[in-house]
Amino acid sequence: MRREREPEYVIGRIPVLECLRVGKRRATKLYLLDNGRGLDELYEAATQRSVPIEHRSRRDLDQLSDKAAHQGAILEADSMPLLSLGAWLADRTGGNSVLVVLDGIEDPRNFGAIVRSACACAADGVLFAKDRSAPISPTAMKAAAGAMEHVDLIQVTNLVRALGELKDAGYWAACLEASAEQSIWEADLTGKMALVIGGEGKGVRRLVRESCDLQLKIPLSGPITSLNASVSAAVALYECLRQRAT
Amino acid sequence: MRREREPEYVIGRIPVLECLRVGKRRATKLYLLDNGRGLDELYEAATQRSVPIEHRSRRDLDQLSDKAAHQGAILEADSMPLLSLGAWLADRTGGNSVLVVLDGIEDPRNFGAIVRSACACAADGVLFAKDRSAPISPTAMKAAAGAMEHVDLIQVTNLVRALGELKDAGYWAACLEASAEQSIWEADLTGKMALVIGGEGKGVRRLVRESCDLQLKIPLSGPITSLNASVSAAVALYECLRQRAT
Repeated sequence: MRREREPEYVIGRIPVLECLRVGKRRATKLYLLDNGRGLDELYEAATQRSVPIEHRSRRDLDQLSDKAAHQGAILEADSMPLLSLGAWLADRTGGNSVLVVLDGIEDPRNFGAIVRSACACAADGVLFAKDRSAPISPTAMKAAAGAMEHVDLIQVTNLVRALGELKDAGYWAACLEASAEQSIWEADLTGKMALVIGGEGKGVRRLVRESCDLQLKIPLSGPITSLNASVSAAVALYECLRQRAT
Repeated sequence: MRREREPEYVIGRIPVLECLRVGKRRATKLYLLDNGRGLDELYEAATQRSVPIEHRSRRDLDQLSDKAAHQGAILEADSMPLLSLGAWLADRTGGNSVLVVLDGIEDPRNFGAIVRSACACAADGVLFAKDRSAPISPTAMKAAAGAMEHVDLIQVTNLVRALGELKDAGYWAACLEASAEQSIWEADLTGKMALVIGGEGKGVRRLVRESCDLQLKIPLSGPITSLNASVSAAVALYECLRQRAT
């Protein structure tokens, strides 16, 4: 299990650059490839934040990154800060908010892609349970293209209880469900929305679904009975954004 | 290079099942795992279409599939039929149509995911150039979740010339471009639309962009400067579908 204080490695240029830029967590050392090209921006960002820089051989970096595509840059940093729902809610003001709630997204590429889309759609946070969730791994961070550093990440023990707290705080909870009658286009998605995305292949679990105010479908044609979880999330998030923007 | 008449292997349960069900191409042999579970539906589909079935060991299947996740099922079939644009256009009737045009999508997972979304959104086809395109590989077919068998696949030599032919046939060509002024929500996406999606990281090429009637952006917030190609495609395709449905 991940422990809160263990340092972790941020791998690849965009994740490293955003981690340095945003400063959501403390960076302790930047490893750059000896004579690597196109690393100036990273060098400057680290210097500005007084993060020590070490130049290393490709072999060292390959080893540090466990063969993930590091592109010549690996950052040692505190582990990603995860908020409690209480702390996150205490910081909310205003009546307009979109929170993405993940019910069992276990593929780190999907997890990262959803955080990226959430960030692109100006969502306020991504909430997930301690269990049955993809880890915040280098693969997830790569798929998120730096967005992990920007979006609030909220970890809870029990998703059903979390939905209860959100509803107490004025959120409407809507889950994506292929068999729902109402489509995302027919529902009012403005105001305070918690958008629940089900896991790959399994969808939203029954107890979670029953805790939602709305069940919404993304219309599907032909033989396709489901969309990839990150595609579903993006389509629904953009519908939230469209309704708020137009 | 792929040749038209070479048989290929369709790998994994959903791709195999859809290939057998749809019958867009001739299937010549079904390999099933010895004593494999949950393969009855495949067995029946093959029997119905008089496709010979052979039971094989896991080792044989691993070898045939080159270690792709075959889930106990591999189908030998004619290679995927690709249409010419002329032949495809000759078959079109009616004033409502969405064609997805890929400009340099080279990642087979993205290619497959876009075909899946195109199918889910009832698009009429996916067009791509011979060069700079992902191959129709087992990885692409897996990501497409069977949709490759349903959607018309159109291969052309020159994308700019193809857009010219489409415009002559009454299509409006719109490309996704992060720097565009008009958003997908502001444009009229009904009627006959050719929706051009640019390649990973590089976007739509200049000559292709200049051949389009419209340039459209998907609004982005925060530090995110682009979306994954398959996410962009899905968001734009669903906006096409929304405008047609509501």
